[in-house]
Amino acid sequence: MKFGLFGGATAARVGPDVDSAQGYNEFIEYNIEAEALGYHSTFMVEHHFTGFGQVSASLNFLTWLGAKTTTLRLGTAVLVLPWHNPVLIAEQTATLDLLTNGRLDFGVGKGYRYNEFDGFCIPMEEADARFEESIAVIKKAWTSMDRFSHEGKYWRYKDIVVEPGVMQRPHPPIWMGAGSESSIRRVAELGANLLLDQFTPIEAIGEKFAFFRNEVEKRGRVFDADTVAVARAFYVANNSAEKEAAHERRLKAQRRLTTISQTPTGDNKASILSFSDTRQASEESALYGLPDEICAKISRLEQLGVRYLLLTGGGIRENLRRFAKDVMPVFAGRAPATSTKNVSPAV
Amino acid sequence: MKFGLFGGATAARVGPDVDSAQGYNEFIEYNIEAEALGYHSTFMVEHHFTGFGQVSASLNFLTWLGAKTTTLRLGTAVLVLPWHNPVLIAEQTATLDLLTNGRLDFGVGKGYRYNEFDGFCIPMEEADARFEESIAVIKKAWTSMDRFSHEGKYWRYKDIVVEPGVMQRPHPPIWMGAGSESSIRRVAELGANLLLDQFTPIEAIGEKFAFFRNEVEKRGRVFDADTVAVARAFYVANNSAEKEAAHERRLKAQRRLTTISQTPTGDNKASILSFSDTRQASEESALYGLPDEICAKISRLEQLGVRYLLLTGGGIRENLRRFAKDVMPVFAGRAPATSTKNVSPAV
Repeated sequence: MKFGLFGGATAARVGPDVDSAQGYNEFIEYNIEAEALGYHSTFMVEHHFTGFGQVSASLNFLTWLGAKTTTLRLGTAVLVLPWHNPVLIAEQTATLDLLTNGRLDFGVGKGYRYNEFDGFCIPMEEADARFEESIAVIKKAWTSMDRFSHEGKYWRYKDIVVEPGVMQRPHPPIWMGAGSESSIRRVAELGANLLLDQFTPIEAIGEKFAFFRNEVEKRGRVFDADTVAVARAFYVANNSAEKEAAHERRLKAQRRLTTISQTPTGDNKASILSFSDTRQASEESALYGLPDEICAKISRLEQLGVRYLLLTGGGIRENLRRFAKDVMPVFAGRAPATSTKNVSPAV
Repeated sequence: MKFGLFGGATAARVGPDVDSAQGYNEFIEYNIEAEALGYHSTFMVEHHFTGFGQVSASLNFLTWLGAKTTTLRLGTAVLVLPWHNPVLIAEQTATLDLLTNGRLDFGVGKGYRYNEFDGFCIPMEEADARFEESIAVIKKAWTSMDRFSHEGKYWRYKDIVVEPGVMQRPHPPIWMGAGSESSIRRVAELGANLLLDQFTPIEAIGEKFAFFRNEVEKRGRVFDADTVAVARAFYVANNSAEKEAAHERRLKAQRRLTTISQTPTGDNKASILSFSDTRQASEESALYGLPDEICAKISRLEQLGVRYLLLTGGGIRENLRRFAKDVMPVFAGRAPATSTKNVSPAV
């Protein structure tokens, strides 16, 4: 079982007397320690115009973090393609991949927050088409050694070669969040890796995992369990009061995000919004509790085939350390427990 | 006299067996050593689709370099605004400024290379209007603590607050290249700093410097000589054969750039192209030769009021060291020689 991190720093813009670098600096130190503790990766969000300072320039932030670390993989989760010129993204990601000696995990999405579409004056209805055009351009830009042109609905380029080249060949891993069967099928079609969200209950994670494996194998490819990462909130508590407080913090944060994301007419049906702000979702999905409770939940995920968790814990340093000390060793180097269908990449 | 660097790395995309990271890594080591040797800053180009691997994602590259250094100021020279979404640039530059504790020098331009406009499918005639709209949005995004909207010709935003905030208040220094009187006047109008190019002969540099100082003072501001940086090619030679070879290398490189930049009809009138590929320009402007020759040229610039040089030397490590050893000490902490009109910022 591999353990990575998922989240982001904040740098609120609250006034001239406040050091807005503090949140960024603390998050960097948190990740440097995570690498030393044995965490495999860090996946960062990209968000805009929140008013509470979520990371906006995630590729720049990850470049800095890459320079301060040596093995930690650096992921976006997710970079929202509709906001960006895809050729500039291809250049920026290739630069990051090259400078970090191939540590980029390129997580991409279509966006789900109304306030961001509204802020950029991009209609939410264009999200799918913009995403599809962008990812095609980016893959072409990364992989084409020859000059090419592109005439799309949103972007046009003439006789270009995109430099620098990427370090990871043929290109860095692409990760996509998906929840519905049709979305998961599309991830398999694109040959991308799958991100499963932090709110889906464990049994449902097992179903989605199996569905994706089947979609990959149906296409004649060997399935690798490392190509699925499951996000989970984590908090190693000393007692039930601490656990309870962690649930309350989480629900409060989720309600704030739901408010930002909703459309004026309340018709935003993004799967991430449908289940994320209930106490039930928090209880069932979160790795909150004493180490034994947490290990029991991870063992259930392991039995369902899961081999890669992305942990989100709000940057609490003590939590990071306790998980590394009390939970990670239980799963270190452990052979797959009951999974029979997991096929190693070498077969 | 302050000495900074101007240039960029290359990472050619020549094939699967070539380590394209090598050029990037060498340039990073070059700049780390430059900081240790006392150089003040490094200004990096941004270019696209050259086929010989000039840096494209300069803000990402500078972020990495910022993480590897502690005092070196990090400049773009220039970031070409017409290629970019200005709000994304405001976010990326603020992130860099915050992470580096305020070391960003934001050099901007309109672009002059035909192959880039053509590659991005942006008409060259739109360069001025795109530049003006972008710089206004970026300044607003950096400085506005309140949400704002923007309805421009090229960009629209609704009710946004741009995060994170910048470290340098009210915003990082803006640098603009200019050559003609009208362009220099516009730099003074915008309250920006002035970049003078590497090809203009020394006496003409003095005229442009004096013109800018006058334009600044006419507007009731105190002129600070540190707000003008003069680019110069540099090469500390052991003998005349080495000097001659350096001139030849420089002319060859310039001709390659002129070819890329020219329009199909040959009507690109950018000032940087008009004089840059002649031997005469190279002789008159470049700081090539024995240390005494170079010091004599710098003294002439100093007498004309210049206090800040940006040196471009193709990344030759030995050249960087010899200049620091044989030339920089001559000008270290030296009081202004004959300039009478130079006004210190404290006056």
